[in-house]
Amino acid sequence: MEMGRASKREEIAQAALQQFRARGFNATGISDITKAAGVPKGSFYNHFSSKEESALEALSRYADTLRLDMLTAPGRPALERLREHFEYLGGDTLDNGFVRGCLAGNLGAEVADHNEEIRSAVQRGFDRWASHIRQVLVEAQEAGDLDGALDTTAAALFILSAWEGALIAARADKSAAPVEAFFHIVFGVVLR
Amino acid sequence: MEMGRASKREEIAQAALQQFRARGFNATGISDITKAAGVPKGSFYNHFSSKEESALEALSRYADTLRLDMLTAPGRPALERLREHFEYLGGDTLDNGFVRGCLAGNLGAEVADHNEEIRSAVQRGFDRWASHIRQVLVEAQEAGDLDGALDTTAAALFILSAWEGALIAARADKSAAPVEAFFHIVFGVVLR
Repeated sequence: MEMGRASKREEIAQAALQQFRARGFNATGISDITKAAGVPKGSFYNHFSSKEESALEALSRYADTLRLDMLTAPGRPALERLREHFEYLGGDTLDNGFVRGCLAGNLGAEVADHNEEIRSAVQRGFDRWASHIRQVLVEAQEAGDLDGALDTTAAALFILSAWEGALIAARADKSAAPVEAFFHIVFGVVLR
Repeated sequence: MEMGRASKREEIAQAALQQFRARGFNATGISDITKAAGVPKGSFYNHFSSKEESALEALSRYADTLRLDMLTAPGRPALERLREHFEYLGGDTLDNGFVRGCLAGNLGAEVADHNEEIRSAVQRGFDRWASHIRQVLVEAQEAGDLDGALDTTAAALFILSAWEGALIAARADKSAAPVEAFFHIVFGVVLR
């Protein structure tokens, strides 16, 4: 019975992640989540107190898919790891008809002004991510592969923002052009 | 009577722009728009066939506030005009408690995957904007103020994306840091 409850929570949480990614926050109803999870609507509230709480769980699970570990993996030049990280992240949007983008950016755009818990979770996710990117840039500077005068804090924040914007533009354009422009300018100009 | 109808449409359209900017697409109800316009709910459908149609009108009106004319105004160095354009655009978000951001980017993030009319309107808006930015970069190259080897098409698309992402990050962070990073890296590194 305990096992059953745990696995039902897991199914609902996974369905919530998938529904929020596909539909956004306001267009996702509890019934969309329970239908996708194949559970009765009422069972949602056995596991989550609100749609907001399930969105916070979805954000946390989404953050675990960002593969920040790719940025810190030893043995490869820092800027190559950074490029591979974004190539990995871009795959989901570019290989699936230019949909979904980044859950953190999407919830940031849609909900940050109106829900302090979700805003704060997006902020923490961005902070953690920018901090990993900055560490890669510092490492590249130490290896002599990057201009030592570059402000790594500003550059990391900028690269993260530019990535979020490129995914939105790719979805609006239904093309890879904005993501290609990101790689061209970030790796060919900013980090040259 | 005709005048009355025209001014009521204007009031509804202005209220729709304000509500979509403040709430996003899915969180905005027709009644939010008519309440903000101070008109009976039923009168909405005398002027717009659907919420989507009013959002398309809002996007068109929003595009008119972007002041693309600042980019083409004669008599100032091209890159100074570009910087002033983004300083102007950033004011709305930075001076109002880090809310709202860009309506085109917000609708792109929230609705582009699900509504082809709105996606296409966002795409056209981005295309027109990127084309203006590119023209500024070409002019700067011709004046010798910008590296002639920079791919102006990619750079214009990238700068626009980076701007959209910076506004989202500023709202999530409730700080100007992402927008400051945009100015620092775009004008200090990409266009140096």
